[in-house]
Formats: sequence, C-alpha cells, structure tokens
Amino acid sequence: MIPMRIEKDLLGEYPVPEQAYYGIHTARALENFPLSPFKTHFRLISALAVIKKAAAEVNGELGEVSPSISKAIVTAADEVIAGQWRDQFGTDAFQGGAGTSTNMNVNEVLANRAIALLGGKPGDYHLVHPLNHVNLHQSTNDTYPTALRMAAIWLLQDLSNHCALLQQTLQDKEAEFADVLKVGRTQLQDAVPVTLGQEFSAYAQAIARDRWRLYKVEERLRQVNLGGTAIGTGINAPAKYIFMVNERVKRHANIGLARAENMIDATQNADVYVEVSGLLKALAVNLAKIAHDLRLLSSGPFAGFNELNLPERQAGSSIMPGKVNPIIPEAINQICFHVMASDGAITMAAQSGQLELNAFLPLIAHHLLTSIEILTNGVKVFNEKCIAGISANIAVCQNALDNSLATVTALVPYIGYDQATKVARTAVQSGQSVVQTVRNLQLLSDEKLAAIVNPQALTKPGFFKR
Amino acid sequence: MIPMRIEKDLLGEYPVPEQAYYGIHTARALENFPLSPFKTHFRLISALAVIKKAAAEVNGELGEVSPSISKAIVTAADEVIAGQWRDQFGTDAFQGGAGTSTNMNVNEVLANRAIALLGGKPGDYHLVHPLNHVNLHQSTNDTYPTALRMAAIWLLQDLSNHCALLQQTLQDKEAEFADVLKVGRTQLQDAVPVTLGQEFSAYAQAIARDRWRLYKVEERLRQVNLGGTAIGTGINAPAKYIFMVNERVKRHANIGLARAENMIDATQNADVYVEVSGLLKALAVNLAKIAHDLRLLSSGPFAGFNELNLPERQAGSSIMPGKVNPIIPEAINQICFHVMASDGAITMAAQSGQLELNAFLPLIAHHLLTSIEILTNGVKVFNEKCIAGISANIAVCQNALDNSLATVTALVPYIGYDQATKVARTAVQSGQSVVQTVRNLQLLSDEKLAAIVNPQALTKPGFFKR
Amino acid sequence: MIPMRIEKDLLGEYPVPEQAYYGIHTARALENFPLSPFKTHFRLISALAVIKKAAAEVNGELGEVSPSISKAIVTAADEVIAGQWRDQFGTDAFQGGAGTSTNMNVNEVLANRAIALLGGKPGDYHLVHPLNHVNLHQSTNDTYPTALRMAAIWLLQDLSNHCALLQQTLQDKEAEFADVLKVGRTQLQDAVPVTLGQEFSAYAQAIARDRWRLYKVEERLRQVNLGGTAIGTGINAPAKYIFMVNERVKRHANIGLARAENMIDATQNADVYVEVSGLLKALAVNLAKIAHDLRLLSSGPFAGFNELNLPERQAGSSIMPGKVNPIIPEAINQICFHVMASDGAITMAAQSGQLELNAFLPLIAHHLLTSIEILTNGVKVFNEKCIAGISANIAVCQNALDNSLATVTALVPYIGYDQATKVARTAVQSGQSVVQTVRNLQLLSDEKLAAIVNPQALTKPGFFKR
Amino acid sequence: MIPMRIEKDLLGEYPVPEQAYYGIHTARALENFPLSPFKTHFRLISALAVIKKAAAEVNGELGEVSPSISKAIVTAADEVIAGQWRDQFGTDAFQGGAGTSTNMNVNEVLANRAIALLGGKPGDYHLVHPLNHVNLHQSTNDTYPTALRMAAIWLLQDLSNHCALLQQTLQDKEAEFADVLKVGRTQLQDAVPVTLGQEFSAYAQAIARDRWRLYKVEERLRQVNLGGTAIGTGINAPAKYIFMVNERVKRHANIGLARAENMIDATQNADVYVEVSGLLKALAVNLAKIAHDLRLLSSGPFAGFNELNLPERQAGSSIMPGKVNPIIPEAINQICFHVMASDGAITMAAQSGQLELNAFLPLIAHHLLTSIEILTNGVKVFNEKCIAGISANIAVCQNALDNSLATVTALVPYIGYDQATKVARTAVQSGQSVVQTVRNLQLLSDEKLAAIVNPQALTKPGFFKR
Repeated sequence: MIPMRIEKDLLGEYPVPEQAYYGIHTARALENFPLSPFKTHFRLISALAVIKKAAAEVNGELGEVSPSISKAIVTAADEVIAGQWRDQFGTDAFQGGAGTSTNMNVNEVLANRAIALLGGKPGDYHLVHPLNHVNLHQSTNDTYPTALRMAAIWLLQDLSNHCALLQQTLQDKEAEFADVLKVGRTQLQDAVPVTLGQEFSAYAQAIARDRWRLYKVEERLRQVNLGGTAIGTGINAPAKYIFMVNERVKRHANIGLARAENMIDATQNADVYVEVSGLLKALAVNLAKIAHDLRLLSSGPFAGFNELNLPERQAGSSIMPGKVNPIIPEAINQICFHVMASDGAITMAAQSGQLELNAFLPLIAHHLLTSIEILTNGVKVFNEKCIAGISANIAVCQNALDNSLATVTALVPYIGYDQATKVARTAVQSGQSVVQTVRNLQLLSDEKLAAIVNPQALTKPGFFKR
Repeated sequence: MIPMRIEKDLLGEYPVPEQAYYGIHTARALENFPLSPFKTHFRLISALAVIKKAAAEVNGELGEVSPSISKAIVTAADEVIAGQWRDQFGTDAFQGGAGTSTNMNVNEVLANRAIALLGGKPGDYHLVHPLNHVNLHQSTNDTYPTALRMAAIWLLQDLSNHCALLQQTLQDKEAEFADVLKVGRTQLQDAVPVTLGQEFSAYAQAIARDRWRLYKVEERLRQVNLGGTAIGTGINAPAKYIFMVNERVKRHANIGLARAENMIDATQNADVYVEVSGLLKALAVNLAKIAHDLRLLSSGPFAGFNELNLPERQAGSSIMPGKVNPIIPEAINQICFHVMASDGAITMAAQSGQLELNAFLPLIAHHLLTSIEILTNGVKVFNEKCIAGISANIAVCQNALDNSLATVTALVPYIGYDQATKVARTAVQSGQSVVQTVRNLQLLSDEKLAAIVNPQALTKPGFFKR
Repeated sequence: MIPMRIEKDLLGEYPVPEQAYYGIHTARALENFPLSPFKTHFRLISALAVIKKAAAEVNGELGEVSPSISKAIVTAADEVIAGQWRDQFGTDAFQGGAGTSTNMNVNEVLANRAIALLGGKPGDYHLVHPLNHVNLHQSTNDTYPTALRMAAIWLLQDLSNHCALLQQTLQDKEAEFADVLKVGRTQLQDAVPVTLGQEFSAYAQAIARDRWRLYKVEERLRQVNLGGTAIGTGINAPAKYIFMVNERVKRHANIGLARAENMIDATQNADVYVEVSGLLKALAVNLAKIAHDLRLLSSGPFAGFNELNLPERQAGSSIMPGKVNPIIPEAINQICFHVMASDGAITMAAQSGQLELNAFLPLIAHHLLTSIEILTNGVKVFNEKCIAGISANIAVCQNALDNSLATVTALVPYIGYDQATKVARTAVQSGQSVVQTVRNLQLLSDEKLAAIVNPQALTKPGFFKR
Repeated sequence: MIPMRIEKDLLGEYPVPEQAYYGIHTARALENFPLSPFKTHFRLISALAVIKKAAAEVNGELGEVSPSISKAIVTAADEVIAGQWRDQFGTDAFQGGAGTSTNMNVNEVLANRAIALLGGKPGDYHLVHPLNHVNLHQSTNDTYPTALRMAAIWLLQDLSNHCALLQQTLQDKEAEFADVLKVGRTQLQDAVPVTLGQEFSAYAQAIARDRWRLYKVEERLRQVNLGGTAIGTGINAPAKYIFMVNERVKRHANIGLARAENMIDATQNADVYVEVSGLLKALAVNLAKIAHDLRLLSSGPFAGFNELNLPERQAGSSIMPGKVNPIIPEAINQICFHVMASDGAITMAAQSGQLELNAFLPLIAHHLLTSIEILTNGVKVFNEKCIAGISANIAVCQNALDNSLATVTALVPYIGYDQATKVARTAVQSGQSVVQTVRNLQLLSDEKLAAIVNPQALTKPGFFKR
C-alpha cells in the first residue's frame, strides 16, 4: 500500500497518493473514467502548460498573484513542456466534462510542483492553489480548446514537413523512371501508353496538394478563445489579462495565434476540427490510392503485374518460404482506413455540441491529434522504408506494352474509331500485334504506321497528326 | 392555374388542388419540405395502407365507425396497395415530424378516395374523416414504425431470394471451374495452388451466410408497436382494438408480426434498424469483395491477371477502340459503398432519438428501404449480367502456375523451411522452375519430388507425407 | 409496342426506340444498370453539354469537323443546356464504366438532335456521329471529371448565396434578441448569463465561416483535365484543340477554369472531391448544431426550456390535439446526417481509384452534387420557414435567470472559489437566490453585491473588478 | 547500449537485444511499424498462445516434435496465457503482413522461452525453432483469424455479463420509479403522461435486446479456419493434426469452436467481423440514446428539465463554483461515437480483402477488440457510477404534468379531435389548466372529466371509454 494524503473538494474527501503531484480532481477522474487503453495526448498537456505559464506570467505582472508564486508556476510549466512528470498525466482520453479533468490535472500538477519548488509538500495548496493561482482567470472551456488548436498546429507542421520529404522522393522516382514505358490502365484494363515516371508524377502532385492544404488550414486553427472563460463572454477575466495572455501564449508557442473575434462562437462550435479532419482524410485518400497501386504494381512475381519491386522489409510468411509481401503499403492502407474512421468520430462529436459548449471535445482531441500523429509516422515510414527503395522491372513493362493493344487508340485519327475497333478485335483473336494486324489489313503504309505507333511520343500531349 | 379548394387546420386555411385526394396536411408538407430529389418509398405507403385497411375493418367490427365508412376505407386502401394513386404520394423522403406527413398523406388520400367511393367530393370530410375515421385509434408513432418494419420485411424477402439465386450461380461456377488449377494469392503475392472452383466456393459460402442472416433478422423486425399510439402506452386505443388490429395486419400483410411486449421501447428505440443495416452492410462487404476480385482476375488482357473473362456488356470507351470494361462489378462496388454509407446515416439517426420518440425515422426509412432495394437490384444484375457468363482462361491460369513458386511450400515438410527458402530464391534468380531447381540442388529424388509437387493434390486438405 | 430501330456497336446489334435521341450505348446502359431510384444529376448533363458545345466550336474552327456539323452540335447542346430533352437522359446514377454511359448518352442525344436539325432521322450517324464528331478529341475520362467540377462549382455558388442569406437572418435575430438575458448552459447545466442575441451571433459566425470555406474551395475545383483524354497524356488530342477548348469552356460556363498542370494526376485522383465534401460536412455540422439547439430551446412548452417559439408549420400530431412540432429543424438534422453519410461514400470511392483512373466517379458525382443541392434547399428552408420567424419568450428567459445560480461565478474574484461554492450549495438547499444567500452569509455589502451581480454586464468581456 | 545478439533470416542479419525472448522477425516489425500509440491487443496474444499450446501438444502426440520440445512449448505458452512476458509483445496494432508479425512474435517468444526452460540461451533455435517447432503445421493465415475469433468471444462474454448487470439496474429503477408520473415527450414537445418507471423499462428492454444479440453472435465467431494453413486448403497440415488441434484448442479455450466447413472462405472473408461490429454498434446506439436522455432529463437545475438527479462524480467546473456536470453520460456518448467510428474502419478493411486473404485483419482486430473492451468498461461505469445512483425529482415531474396539456389527448374519444384542439389552444392562451378549460367550455360533466383525466390510468394500455 502506497501512503496516501487526503484532499477535499465540493463532493467531500478523497485519497491521493502522498507523493503524487496530481490531486483530488485527477484522482476522481482516474476512478471515474477507467474506460479505454488511450491516455490524453501529451501534446495537449504541453500546450496547456504553455497556457498556464503565460497566464502565470501575466497574472504576476498584473499583480494578481505574487512574484514568487508566478515564478514557481512558470518553472513547473517549463518542466512539463520539456517532457517531465509525464507519469502524472494519466487521465483517460475518453472523459466526460469537456476536458475539465485534463485541465485540472495540469492545474494540480503545476500547483504541486510549484509547491515543491517553493519548499512545500504536495497538497499544501495555501502555497500555490490549482484554481486560485494556476487556473486564475481561466476556464477549461477556454484553455482546453485553445490548447487543442495549439497541439494540432504543432503536429500539423511536422506532418507537413514529412509530406514535403515524401513529395521529393516521389519526384526523384518520377525522374528515375521517366523513360520506363508501360501500359497505362483504366478500370484495370489495358489502355494507352504511359511512363512509370508519369505515374509517380501524379503521386507527387497529389501529395503536393496535401502539403498546401495542411499549410493553409493552420490559419483556421489560429483563432482561439483564450480569455473567453466559461462560455466565451469572458466572465471573470480582466480585459488587460485577456489581451496580454494571448500575446504571451503566441510568443511561447511560437505560433501565429489570434484571439477569435467572436469568442462565444469559438467556445461552442467545433466545425474547424471537422474541416481539419476532412483535409487529413484527403491526405489519407491519396496515400491509400498510392499504397493500393504499389501493391498492385508489385503483385506477382509470376502471377501478377510485377512492374515494380518494393524493398524487402521482412520475411513474408510463416509457412511459404521465400515469399516477401508488400507490408509497408499494407500498413499505410490500414492507417488510412483508421484516419477515415476517426473523421467519422470527430464529425459525430462536433455536431453534438449543445448550446454554449461541446462536451465531447476530448473525443475530438483524441481522434484529431492521434490521426495527425499516425499520418506523420505513416508518411515517414512510407517514404523511407518503401518508396525510396522502389525499383522498376523495365523489361516486364516493355514486354507487356509490346504485346498489348495500348497503341491502337493512336490509330483512330487516321483510320477512324470503327476500323480501329476492328484492328483491336482481330489482333486479340489472331494473337498478333497491333502493327502486324494493321499491315495484314493493309490500312496504313509501314512508314506512317511507324510514325503513329511510337509509344514514347504517345505519352505526351500534342502528339498528333504531324 | 389549376382550381383549388380550401381546407383548414390548426394553423388556418390552406389551398389544395380541387381534385387532389391528398389534403391540407400533405399540401403543407409539400411546401415545408422541398428538400431532396427523393420521395417517400412506396412500399412504406403500401404498408401504411395495409394498416389503415386493418384498422378500418376492426373499427367497423367494433362499431367505432359505420359499416359503409369502414368498407369505403378498405376499398380505397386496397387500391393503394395495388399500386393506384401513386401520384398522390409526393412527400419528400426527408421530412420533419417523425413521419406525420407520410401518415397524414395516407389518411387524407384514403379519406378522399373513400369519399369519392361514397359519392362525395374531395374535402367532404363529414363523409369520411382522415383523423376521426381513417386514423382512428392510431398515431403516426405506432403506424409509421410498424409500416417501416413491414416494408423492410417484404423487401428483405425479395433480397433473400435473389441471394439464393446468386449463391446457386456461384455454386454452378464452382462446379464448372473445379479442375482449373491456378496460383492462389495472399497479399497479391503468389502463394500456393488453388482451383478456380475453390475460389467460387468461397464466394458461394459467403453469400450463403448472407442469406441466412437476412432470413434470421426478419424475426427482429416482426415485433411491432401497433396499438401503442403516441408513445407506446396505448393511450386512446381500446384493448380489443389493439389485439384485433395486430392480428388483422398480420393476416393482410402475410408476415408473422407480433405485438412488442414493451411498446414504449418499440416506439422510441431504433436499434433494430441499425441491426438490419449492419447485416446489409455485411452483404455489401461480401459483394464488394467478389466484385473487386473479379475486376482483378479479369484485368488485362495483356498487362493484367487475365484469368477470367467477364461477359461483355457495353463498348468500354469513347476513345479506346475494342476496350471492354468490367462495368457490372464496378457498379456493384459503387452500390456497396452506397450501402455502407447509408449505414452511417441510419446509425446517426438511430442514436439521436430523444425520450419517447425518434423524430428521425423518415431518414432511417429512406436509407434502409433504399439500401435493400438497391442491393436486390444489384444482386440480380450481378448474377444475371456478370457472374452467370464468366468463363475461365485455363491456359493462362496453368501457365502462371507452372512458372511460379506456388509449389515450393509443399517442400517444407521434406526439406525444411530454410532449404525451401533457398530453392525459392535460387529459382527466382536463375529463372528456372521449382522442380528443376530442386533437381539441380539434388535435394529430393525425382520420384518423391513428382509425388510432392502435385498441384491438384496440393489444393486439398490432408495431402501430406503419404 | 413502340417501334424500334436497330443500332450496332462492338458487341453487335441492339434495339433503340425509333424516335429516341439516345442511341445504342445508352440503351445498353439502361439495361445494364437498373439499380437505383436515382438518375444521373442533370447539372452534370448540362456541364457535359457545355463541353460538347465548346469542342464542336473548336473542332469546327480547326477544320476537324465541317461548319454545318459544328453548328448543329452547338445548337443541340444549347438546347440541352437550356433544359430540353431531359427525358432522354435516363441513365442510373450508379453506373460502371467511370461515366462512359453518361458521356455517351450526351454524345448520342446531341448527335441525333443535330441530325434532326440537319434534316436526318435518329440513327443517321453518317450525318453526325456521336464519337467521330461530338466526342472528337475527347474521352469520358477528361470530359466527365471536368463536367463534374463545373457542375459542383455552379451548385456551390448557389449554396454559398443561400448561406449568405441565412447569415443575414441570424444577424438580424442577433440584433433583435440583443437584450434578452438568459441562462447560458454548458453541458446542459446552468452556467453563466448570456443574451439570446449572443447565441445567435455564434450561429451567424459559424455560417459566415462556412460561406468563406465554400467560396475558397471553388479554386480547387477549377483545375480541370480537359484535353487529357484517356489517361491525362492527351493522346489523340491536338495541342491547339487542348488550349482552345479549355478557354472556350471557361467562357461558356462563366467559371474561372484552368487546365491542370498535371493532367495525369487530375484524371486519376479524386481527393479534391473529398476536400469539398469535407467542407460540406463542416456546414452540415454547423447546421445540425443550430437545429439541435433550436429544438432544445423551443422544447416544452410546459415541460421544456421554452425560451424560443419556432414558427408553426403544420399540425404536429395525428393523435395529440394542439401539438406543434419543430419539424423544420428536424428535417435539417436529417439532411445533415445524410450529408455526413454521403461524405463516407465519397471517401470510400475516392480512395478506391486504381492506377490511371477512378472507376467510381459516378458514385462521387451522385453524392457530391446531391449533397450540395440538398444543403442548398435545406439552408433556404431553414432560413425562410424557421429562423426568420423565431420569437423569444423573454419572461421565461428572465425568470430562469433570476432563479438560477448563473451569477455565482461572478463572486469568485471577490470571495474566492471555495466561498462561492458554499454560496451555490447553500442557495440550492435553501431554495433562496444567490443574492439572498450572500446577504444571509454576510459575505459582501449590498452595494458591492449589486455591482457584481449584474447579468447584463456579466455577458460582456472585461467586466471585472471595476 | 544494451548488448545484442545477431539473428538471420531471408533478408540477412539483424540485431536483437541479447536477452529478448522475441527474435529477428519481431525486431524487424518494431523497426518497420513505428506507427501508432496502439499495441497489439493482449487478448489476441493470449489466444495465439492457446493455439500454439494445442499445436505443440498435438504435434508431440503425433510424433512430429519430440516430447521435451512439446512440453517446453506448452509450459511457455501457459506462462503467456497467464499474463507473463507481456513486455515481449510490443508490435504495433497497425502492421502490414496480415498479422505475420504478431504470429511470429508469439512463435519467437514461445521458442526462446522454451529454449530457456530447456537450459539454452535466446537464439539457440536448434533447441526449439519458432517456425519448425512452434509454428509447425500452421500459418499466420489460419492461426491469426482463429485467435481473433477466440479473443472476440472471450471479450464478448464479459461484455454480455456487464450488459446483464446494467439491465438489472435499469429494471430496479423501473420498479423504483413506477409511480413517478411525468410528461412524456415526443420531438421534445410535451405529449402524453408516462411514468419515469416506464421510461426506464424501455431502456432495460433495449439493453436486454443487446444481450441477446451478443449472445447469439458468438455462434458465428465459432467457425474457425485452424488447419487451413496458408489459404484454407490445408497445405502442409496432416489431416490428423487438423482434426486434433481444433478439438484441443476448443478444450483449452473453453469455447465451443468448430472447424469451418469451407476453410478457404473462412480464411479470406471478413464479413463476420462486420456482423459483430454492427451489433456492437447497435449496443452503442442504445447506450448513446440513454446517455443523451439522462443528460437531458437532468439538465438545469433551474433552466432545464431537472426531472432526474445523477450522482455527483466530480466538481464540474474550474471556474463555476457548485456546478456538477453529467460527466458519466458524456463519457458514454463519446465511447459510443468511438465504437460507431470503429465500425467504419472495420467495414472498410473487411471489404478490401483480395483473393485468398484479407491483409488488413490487424486493423480489424484492433478496432473490434478495442470496441468490445471499451464498451465493457463503459457499461460497467455507466451502471455503477451513474445509473445505480439516479434519483427522481418527483415534485418537478408532477408539477410539469399538472401544468401541461399532456392529458388533452385523452379527451379526443369523447369530444373529438377538433374540440380537443380548441381546448389545447384555449388553455395555452388563457394560462388555465386543461380541466379548467373543459369546464369553462362546458364540454363534459365534472364526473366524466375526472374519470378521463387520470394520468396514472392514461399510462396504461386499454384505458378507454369505460
């Protein structure tokens, strides 16, 4: 049995481990919400600590708390921001109370750590009080959404950087495979010629679009309701404090934050998280498309497309010797399904806000921050452990192109759609190539035919009836 | 300008087309809900007509309405059940009021049609009244959910029958392709031998499971709250009527309905629709899997798997001559996505019920009935226009199998996993077959090797170290 | 039996109604896809007609088709754009073939209508040919996605306009209710004072954000792949044509279109539809929140919040006299669920594209265009038939505020959190007001108390220890 | 630096911590999949250990492995089943390879632990080999799905038990509140009388339905593909082993498992997980409905419904003294959103299976097992920390009923719908009660009126015109 101290609140007394920096509110939360294997995201804790630091500084400067208390809270907050005391933040990701447990967890840990810095023992709240000092002029309802936006911005910047690296690798592959001619496929059926490089250029372009989206959406997240306190009206917060604390958080967080014009709106409405999640989903859609394609293009090696080789990452099978599977794209596909599903959770929670508050922000926070984090990891792994190491089976690509009907479309401007159809059908039935079939049917001179059926040229726009 | 008559309700006067069988409530609904291109599903209208018929009979027998009114309502209801007066039922599928507009639409059309049968003019409600006669002892809140369950059961029976036909076709293909040996693939990589017939057996088994599910779920839908009136307490409904009307509806609808034990629960809770939708989604998952596979197996013909030929259903391309695409499986995949998405709508609506009623039943009705109907059409089209006409490219299958490493797994029990891995790797590098590689490495006698590497036998369980 | 003509394609002969403007491809599509109650959206047809018109003009100017054919096609296209021949466009919304059936439907109707204008009979394709003339230098794979983007932009502009009107009405209500003091609620519990006007200001701000989003996203949809033909490489399209046709479509559609830099990407990737759908979903989230709130605030009248009166739109119940229900917000909530669900369908389809094409664009088109249309209708109905007519129950609001503890928070800066908690608890137990309780406990002078507990002032930021 | 040993596989050498029981395959998986904060669910690990134990026993009895090796593996497996060596199982929940990493993790830990039991050092695979001994006659593709079904059944039994307890508590409340008369509401508007007990009876009935569903679905999960090895054909597995190992697993797991008739189907199709998830979602819908209702019914206390008191679980606000929020229902609502979203992930993964395998089973496993676990925790918390402690505000309920129009519906059979409507309207306008209004209008004798307007009687079916 670990030794306990007794704390007291509105509901009565409750035991807390004697040496814990967290206090009664956190202890009750641990008892109330033993719900999931997921904990509150630490970036959210860090962002709250930045806010508490800024508030302590401002309240100190305004004379609302003493210099020593202010300084102790700031030091404690800096420690949390640096990653210390992580084991004190154990609240479940799924919690009622609109984030009150998480906010109080931070208030309590900072208070008790500040108390320790001032020479007191955990629980000596006359030295530093979680509510009267650390949370002064704040509410869960302004600090939590503000922290959520800050954490999302931090994580999005990381994701955006990794998208840039992925885009670069895809562009490198575009260059590397620029001359690898192959059959382009629509609806999985042989269509017209394309280069493998062009295929990677389409992937690169899609990821470039994602980068731009993630970069732009940051603007929306920058509007925060800090200072709005309980419902956005700013009750109990001095005007000076409201102005100063926003400036201070902006500086410490190194993000271009701005106080929302309508803080009542910013307190209760969660559509901006839906917007961000929608863009994460668009990235997931692009990643999933690429991963599906890579699994398809590397299928085989004998009974599949076999146009690409993915780098081998692990022995593929516990029963089939020599088998190597496309495990990285498979993992990416799963990540993408996860992000798409999380978007559903975020949407349901966002539309369920009622009146002055959305009580379901903790669910939104969990899914949003986790989605960004998982996507960041996924983009990194996809880039480094798969795409960077892809090689082409040039001969396989060329061979399929030579045998296919992919060039028959190019005949249409010269012999018409109906004759070209006849060539295609005859070629399939006879097993002969398109060129040979045109010759047999005496539809074009050899010279003209050679000029038309030039796969490399057919992959470029504007090649037409020169 | 069409001539109008004036009707009156709680809110005042409102014009209705003079000859319309629908009345003021419907007219207001048409004005209030010009929202979507979707109309209320006609099977729901039919089911409501069956209920109205039963109620009119019972109320007639109990002396609550006169025999002539009862008879006129019954006749009018029979006409609607037979498909008449469809153009009178134009309410939007998305309507507020928990279905009141749809229920009142039926009440009004039956009343005015009954009035006509009795020699009156539309609007002569002293002859037959929509509320006092047609809706007598009923509420939207018991008739609408009951009708929804009836309509769902009717449509499910149709879907189940078409699943049976699809299963039969898949089993026919299982027999037809029983001897077509090919490479089985896991994770799109060549794995071990299988027959094409076995692949179709897996499809048939999955669809058999769906049939069973759809058959069993009918039981859940049979519990109805008819007689519960406004909130399931049965206010204003005589006990005799409650008992008799349920028996009568059961008989007329030819479905094994039963009055729910707890009608308050049956009035407010919508989880049973979520359950049904979940099973529709399971069917969609199986259909989607089959459709994806068929598109993959018929890919090519030169740069793809090309193991199967789907029947040609239309010229594939407006630009590429001779191209024929897997359009039926593509349509099936889209249907399946649609059904999966509808499940989301049903879920959100179902969890949003409040207290004694779920006001969002019309959305559930739209998505549930449409999903069943679309799946029925899809299963029929998939069966008749695609699967029944599939043929195998036996030589392609055999050729890939001969060239692949699919038999190397069979060596493990004889030479161990590590040696078998060496065989696989050597074969790939040298371009030689598994059999030749084993011979080169002198790992097994030719006789033993031939016994082991027998693809047909390798597709059956229990082939092992004879 | 209607008289039929026989047409012929790659797969053989097929009958078409003699007088139909559509042809064999459409006829086969009608047979292949009897799947759903949904037809291809007419705005998509119109957009395709604009493209066909532009292509006919450009092909005429380039001498690729004769002036008379060009002119006839242009005239036919103008008729379709004006809404004529709607009954000729009956393809199912759910179709395989990536939209080929819809593109061919337009090609055939325009060809046969042009033939008629030139004095021929339907099927006289030597006069005007669906492929060789109408579809010249085009593919389904560039015209269909381009048309989808054009249709989406047109519809989005309409939606954006209706959002502006809704925003204006909400702002009018903000002004109207500026002085209606009431209890603000967080987590459905009484919290602190707010004005009803402030609540409407939050709604207005959320809708303003939606307007901005919908306006900005148009930019993304402007990048089109017209001229990319089959897979974006521009095979079979002359360079001059590619340049000119994009300019011409832009002019005729009155939208700022631009040819995508990477047309291969624009042909195969569907993430931009996911992006748009995500923003529609954000709008749906805001509308749903408002609708939920209005249903809550108008609940009662005796056993509910009863702060607001919604305009009465229909008699509410077929059994309960005098009941009037919040039917418009209920319909809005259902629309929003529908849009959220459609987002799921769009996402699944978008991530399922394979290689050079996404075969599931028709599903995306159906859900995207329908969602925009339904939202537009919904915003209009919500605005005109509900929000514009809302009135406040001022006395109810004031009375609840007077009785509640909503002002106790304002005491914290003066008496501390713990004493304020005591006041709150005591007031609840004694049934006395906050003011009276403070007096009883002799915590503050009457003068100071009056200055602090001023609900109107408490709804504004910066009210603090003056 | 921890000391490392070097292991070797198909891809070459790789370092593993010297004392680790896991081996090279796990080490590669840790490097390949640093993707999410989620680990492979331990119940899945346990189930795999049960399978490995059974296989070792059977292989020992069949003479395929030596008695000492068999015994050592069994002992190692028993330890894992008992919860030991958890820290050796660190693979990410999101992994490519269809679960190979998890299966190999178990193979390696059991092999190295068995080696230790036999006196060897980690990596001495000549003593016990992960593939040749532990995995003998198995594949990831039969053991992983089998283990997933076993884990799901175990967890479902727990969930079902907690549903039973919740049902009991709801029934207790039904009895406790049997006489608390109140206004029943439809569409949040006052409707007709109901008792609070009846409301809880509806909740109890819904949960009873969930119990039954979860109980019945277990049957579907019982069909396993153990012995099917790579693709369900049973390649490399002796017939005797297949029979015996299924019996043995059944016995050790204490679940009524049965070998699937069609193991090819059972290997590749994942619809059964969709079915189970759909039922979890139905439970989530019912829990969410109840939680929403409880938050609504306990809203206030002054500006809300205030019919119920939820037990106080924590101080509600960091800024508003005395506020206590409905935190447990809020947490339940979030859990339910999460489960609904997970259903989407499971569906997408299930429909994405290709040919002989579904590579995305790990995602399904994560979401399915986590959903069951979270629901179990949620049901327990909801029951114990919320519902069991609910009390009624009887006077508030009665008062609202007395003032409301809830009894006016009962007048319809006596005075007709139109007169009853007039009563309702007049009562609202005059502020007088229904009874008084009827008197004023002289519509019924006092005696008759008293008999009719009897709220208690109005909550029971069959009360009608006695």
